[in-house]
Amino acid sequence: MSIYEEALKFHERVKGKIEVISRVEVDNSYDLSLAYTPGVAQPCIEIQKNPNLAYTYTRKWNTIAVISDGTAVLGLGDIGPLASLPVMEGKCVLFKKFADVDAFPIVIDSKNIDEIVDTISKISLGFGGINLEDISAPRCFEIEKRLKEKLDIPVFHDDQHGTAIVVLAGLINALKIVKKDLEGLKIVINGAGAAGTSIAKLLLSYGAKNVIMCDKHGALSTDQNLDEAKMELAKITNPNNEKGKLIDVIKNADVFIGVSAPNVLTSEMVKNMSNDSIVFAMANPTPEIFPEDAKKGGARIVGTGRSDYPNQINNVLAFPGIFRGALDARASEINEDMKIAAAMAIANSIKEDELTEENIIPKPFDLKVQREVSRAVFEAAIKSKVARIK
Amino acid sequence: MSIYEEALKFHERVKGKIEVISRVEVDNSYDLSLAYTPGVAQPCIEIQKNPNLAYTYTRKWNTIAVISDGTAVLGLGDIGPLASLPVMEGKCVLFKKFADVDAFPIVIDSKNIDEIVDTISKISLGFGGINLEDISAPRCFEIEKRLKEKLDIPVFHDDQHGTAIVVLAGLINALKIVKKDLEGLKIVINGAGAAGTSIAKLLLSYGAKNVIMCDKHGALSTDQNLDEAKMELAKITNPNNEKGKLIDVIKNADVFIGVSAPNVLTSEMVKNMSNDSIVFAMANPTPEIFPEDAKKGGARIVGTGRSDYPNQINNVLAFPGIFRGALDARASEINEDMKIAAAMAIANSIKEDELTEENIIPKPFDLKVQREVSRAVFEAAIKSKVARIK
Repeated sequence: MSIYEEALKFHERVKGKIEVISRVEVDNSYDLSLAYTPGVAQPCIEIQKNPNLAYTYTRKWNTIAVISDGTAVLGLGDIGPLASLPVMEGKCVLFKKFADVDAFPIVIDSKNIDEIVDTISKISLGFGGINLEDISAPRCFEIEKRLKEKLDIPVFHDDQHGTAIVVLAGLINALKIVKKDLEGLKIVINGAGAAGTSIAKLLLSYGAKNVIMCDKHGALSTDQNLDEAKMELAKITNPNNEKGKLIDVIKNADVFIGVSAPNVLTSEMVKNMSNDSIVFAMANPTPEIFPEDAKKGGARIVGTGRSDYPNQINNVLAFPGIFRGALDARASEINEDMKIAAAMAIANSIKEDELTEENIIPKPFDLKVQREVSRAVFEAAIKSKVARIK
Repeated sequence: MSIYEEALKFHERVKGKIEVISRVEVDNSYDLSLAYTPGVAQPCIEIQKNPNLAYTYTRKWNTIAVISDGTAVLGLGDIGPLASLPVMEGKCVLFKKFADVDAFPIVIDSKNIDEIVDTISKISLGFGGINLEDISAPRCFEIEKRLKEKLDIPVFHDDQHGTAIVVLAGLINALKIVKKDLEGLKIVINGAGAAGTSIAKLLLSYGAKNVIMCDKHGALSTDQNLDEAKMELAKITNPNNEKGKLIDVIKNADVFIGVSAPNVLTSEMVKNMSNDSIVFAMANPTPEIFPEDAKKGGARIVGTGRSDYPNQINNVLAFPGIFRGALDARASEINEDMKIAAAMAIANSIKEDELTEENIIPKPFDLKVQREVSRAVFEAAIKSKVARIK
């Protein structure tokens, strides 16, 4: 049986991967009078007087919504909201397991940006944060941006930022091994969608100077006819105005980051990269290049999105701790400082003497890493003055 | 310490009355590949092909949303959505405890009927049912009606129908004791809001012929200047066109049902009711008349909303079983047949030889009653052809 057939049987057997449970006993009238009427009127009255007390008297302090419109689900694309629900439930499982965050899935029956923003705003009061998931680019940029403006709770599109955080973490550690500085690197990112865009921006925030974006037509530059999102990207990347397709601009690159499609990078192309090249080929399940082929091309450090190769660049290293730290700080947003803090915590969880070409990213199941990430994010929230805990 | 102060401390101590937990183990890559990528793609693909399979591969089959806009919360009135959250969490606790239904609270940041209907529609796909809660009359009638038209899952406003179901159950049993027939009764309902309106309609469905509604101005009749909801009610009630205030129309009534305000019914007024009068005074915490005063006025059977008197008319006898039965049948709606079936199951859970004036309604904590209600509702769904299970 393939993993797909097994997974189908598994889903049928478990009858839902999450459930809602009561945290309180209600065995008699007295219990009822505390948890429900008439006693429950008192926390209501207090919250009406001071809305922040919702964090004290309800589960808002620990609850996030995992929200999708089903337009960019895994490798399946636009399968619609209802069909995305198994993924959203799975995401909620991971939030609970890795960060003890209560996450509830909500799938939105609309593709219209205004409707999506409006619907999410209207249901957001009871939540401490919003994780957007599997919403297609470029719509996801506007949706996240508008929600961040409207809401006073963290709004985070994991497909954008989670990937970026773990890529940055991997790159920080890879650079320790190859002993290069970020500022001097030529970095080529293949794929200018949600993940690629965010990776570029985070690397630039962190100090990268020469990042080149490629989409399926080739390197982005400002003299092309690009949509708004890609033009914004073109303005802050490709400082030397390099032209051509991936095969052209990859020459002398120190780093290749793929968030695109299978088999678009060859060993020959890797050979034309710098010495000690770093290749993160994250198209899943079939990467832009398999590690063995990248090694044949002389790559020194290789990462993929797959669990059956070393250096799995897995978002699960980032999103649970990001929200744990943000919720603990009662942060009003997840900002660059917090994302960079998360990336550094992921990277630094591997001690220098354990760092090797095959070990630049910690394993996802290491709960110690999760705690280090949430601690770092919490402190970054405090330092950058977006925390609201007393 | 009052119950209110205790409840406040309780809410602070428990830090949220519900939580979301994982139903699956995710301890290693293999587990991840079944519950998440890549295996989770398969149930997504199947649901895209056949949306009904969401009931098989996700928790939709057992999950409802408990939704409020905070406009009619307990005795507090319009306190807004965020302040209503402790009540909504409490409701979810009861759904889980009494019927093993996964209920998640969502509070809507709008008072506009169109926006509320629209928002709920757009988030409804992942749910098996919607319980509306603490939404003010007459807005709640339109909101429920429009959602029932739009959605193919049960939509049920408990403040309307839950109360009505338990009142009907109490009345069925009261009539066994006083040995009167429903059709010949004069029934006065004081309070023409959400609960009063639904009680009237359910009693009329069940066979009552002479129901008179009173609001704070007095008995409703069609020659008055009434809003749309009250006019609709006036058309189907008060067949003898009685005029005046409560004190007038209560004369010779067999049944008084109060869903209104404290102290509006006096012993004198009860004396003017028929022999063997039945008084359900449900204003909470202070009823329309206290049982001892109703008894002084000669009432034979008295019920209130309070747990410290016999015959507590408590919605918790109805809403869990209603949804358990509806979800088990995968019913597309909760119709009159199902509501009446619930009322009859509640009533019949007390055997004839146990029935007394002080025991016409079962205790809420009796899980056997809950199971009988859900069984009856399930069968009524099947019989009335709104069930969709195979």
